[in-house]
Amino acid sequence: MDILIKNAPALLPEGLSGGPADICISGERILSVGSVPKDFIPEQVIDASGMLAVPGLVNAHTHAYMTLFRNCADDLAFNDWLFGRILPLEDLLTAEDCYWGTLLGCMEMLSTGTASFLDMYIFCGSAARAVSDCGMRAVLSRGLTDSAGEDPAGGKRRLTDALDEMREWGNVPGLSFMLAPHAPYTCSERYQREIAELSHDTGVPVNLHLAESDAETATILEKHGCTPTELFDRTGLLSDTTVAAHCVKLSDGDIDILARRGVSVATNPVSNLKLANGVARIPELLGRGVNVALGTDGAASNNTLNMFRELAFLGLLRKGLDADPTAVTAAQCLSAATAGGAAALGLDSGAIAPGKLADITLIDLDRINLFPRNNLLSSLVYSANGSEVSTVIVSGKILYDHGEFTTIDRERVLYEVNAVCRRIGTINE
Amino acid sequence: MDILIKNAPALLPEGLSGGPADICISGERILSVGSVPKDFIPEQVIDASGMLAVPGLVNAHTHAYMTLFRNCADDLAFNDWLFGRILPLEDLLTAEDCYWGTLLGCMEMLSTGTASFLDMYIFCGSAARAVSDCGMRAVLSRGLTDSAGEDPAGGKRRLTDALDEMREWGNVPGLSFMLAPHAPYTCSERYQREIAELSHDTGVPVNLHLAESDAETATILEKHGCTPTELFDRTGLLSDTTVAAHCVKLSDGDIDILARRGVSVATNPVSNLKLANGVARIPELLGRGVNVALGTDGAASNNTLNMFRELAFLGLLRKGLDADPTAVTAAQCLSAATAGGAAALGLDSGAIAPGKLADITLIDLDRINLFPRNNLLSSLVYSANGSEVSTVIVSGKILYDHGEFTTIDRERVLYEVNAVCRRIGTINE
Repeated sequence: MDILIKNAPALLPEGLSGGPADICISGERILSVGSVPKDFIPEQVIDASGMLAVPGLVNAHTHAYMTLFRNCADDLAFNDWLFGRILPLEDLLTAEDCYWGTLLGCMEMLSTGTASFLDMYIFCGSAARAVSDCGMRAVLSRGLTDSAGEDPAGGKRRLTDALDEMREWGNVPGLSFMLAPHAPYTCSERYQREIAELSHDTGVPVNLHLAESDAETATILEKHGCTPTELFDRTGLLSDTTVAAHCVKLSDGDIDILARRGVSVATNPVSNLKLANGVARIPELLGRGVNVALGTDGAASNNTLNMFRELAFLGLLRKGLDADPTAVTAAQCLSAATAGGAAALGLDSGAIAPGKLADITLIDLDRINLFPRNNLLSSLVYSANGSEVSTVIVSGKILYDHGEFTTIDRERVLYEVNAVCRRIGTINE
Repeated sequence: MDILIKNAPALLPEGLSGGPADICISGERILSVGSVPKDFIPEQVIDASGMLAVPGLVNAHTHAYMTLFRNCADDLAFNDWLFGRILPLEDLLTAEDCYWGTLLGCMEMLSTGTASFLDMYIFCGSAARAVSDCGMRAVLSRGLTDSAGEDPAGGKRRLTDALDEMREWGNVPGLSFMLAPHAPYTCSERYQREIAELSHDTGVPVNLHLAESDAETATILEKHGCTPTELFDRTGLLSDTTVAAHCVKLSDGDIDILARRGVSVATNPVSNLKLANGVARIPELLGRGVNVALGTDGAASNNTLNMFRELAFLGLLRKGLDADPTAVTAAQCLSAATAGGAAALGLDSGAIAPGKLADITLIDLDRINLFPRNNLLSSLVYSANGSEVSTVIVSGKILYDHGEFTTIDRERVLYEVNAVCRRIGTINE
């Protein structure tokens, strides 16, 4: 559909537009920004007076199905969280459960301005079906482990499933795929090399967890005599199409490696706090030219998939810890949540510019917390809470329209999610 | 007015009610919780189906007038922030400007569930008038300085103004007052002693900034040979009615003093990050039995007066920094924002219990980010963003009703604030 968005200022690659910047969308792409081509006849005109147009946000690391587990394992020591709570619950899930959980995650992401995300999951097909049903853009990756070499058959099966899924869903618009060696401590060196070679041969990028905790660093040092980053580098998993989530525990040498290989880092500030892992070295990564993207992680280790909350944490944490109020700026945060995320995910989106995929979020500026309008850009990072999102357009289609989902049956999803949670026992009422 | 709130579960002092807990309000106080007395005839019945009743939140440290400065000084080094931007702007303000700025702050606080707050300001009467006009509950305090002894006449004048204000406004329902020696580095020792004696003689409590930055610690050590906490202790300012904001840079000995004197700490996690001061030692303070309250600080050093964002930061920061996911729990956070805040401010509110002042916030649970309802209490701290607040009752009066202000002319306030910001030059459009 051809759409004209009128009367809204826009967050452009060069900064905020001075006044309203009319945006023409033709099909799935942005046709023009600023002026309307003479022969452009929109089928729909959106009067976005009082709103701000920003690129649809990119959530560069999540596990959407885990939205099922929101708030069911908080304030727990890591082992109690993972082994006592999350893994036993995960064992109870079916592919159908994960479909509904993913849709709940999609609803939350859309309602807070996210247009696309990078997902890692356990059931092939569930996320693909959910994303394709709701029309979001996603990069999908089945988490791959061989239980650190203890379960080579399982590792093989998971990889085969992932490849089958790519063949089955690879041509669906809006979907793309990555290979996801889960983590340095869950994949044997042999398995890592196998995936790296496959990625190299097929051109399918890599998505992985890296340097999340001190325990991981200690385990890898003991077993492999190097840092997790060095291990992944030597098995060939780090390249300029690789997205590495977390990256909290990085040495200077590790940062060198990431910079040299052109790896994108998907930082998850809230998750890293909640699971007691610390705060990533964002200023150092940015200073070395590493592409930094922003992700929420799953709801089990964050409790919301709201990128606006993530933006605030990204902007504030290193200021306080480095005694430097300029450590990470609002512009750097917004870049991580838009262009940086798109670059990480290999998407031709993340910017309001002619030719780009038409992923656009409209923000209602008529909010007390955005007033007075002393600095709109700053207010997006430090004052907004995500509830200001009015409309989300993905690939030129309006998926969230003044608070209503156009492709998702909200009540049905809530009903099904509730049924899952009763069955697995996280809700007892 | 007598009100019956029906069909909502409630956050009670002992935890969440199992099912709906009917709340009867008679005049300005809560009459009963759980069952409705036979002879109670409400003038208004609120059907709060699908909502959760929580105590109206207590913002234990803010400068509401500074909402005028939201987003006008971000990502700046401290000296550029304070001396280059905030203080010159403050010089341009009139008492009338601060009235409108305070009302904007009140609107933001009400719309995010806050019923009462402790305010420190520069113009006597402005906050009192705003709070009395809108019906919130506030503890007011004119910031007192003698410019570290350089301006004894100014110090005297400010103190006289503050005392005059208390006489003028002291009997207005919902208002109470504190004496506010601004900070260890802006008040001479002599001035501190004078205020401490006045507080002792009159019974008016003390509100102050303490141990906010390393620079403060260094200045006080050089000038007085002790820590800021030791200085305030020796000038008599620390007692069980004192509220000390910030308290980031505390030694073990300082914590001993605060615990021994029964001082309440109003922690401001976001402000402390934004101004690059670090993270308060909340687990240690709680461990020593110190009453911890929660505040947003002003919008110039936070960018929002939303207590829900503050709750998330309070809950998450020390987990990540102490490598302890149990460092500060959701229940401890909620207590700081309710009962802890009320205790700090000397208010008979902060709990949904018979006899307490009827300050109640209703939260709309029909939100995607609060779903599934695996743990409601946890979701308030880790998933909510403040936009879920539907209704706020203060002293038995409904001030915020399904998103509408009943006592504030929203458009008028926005208009006046905009005019102020254009005049002082923070908005150039």
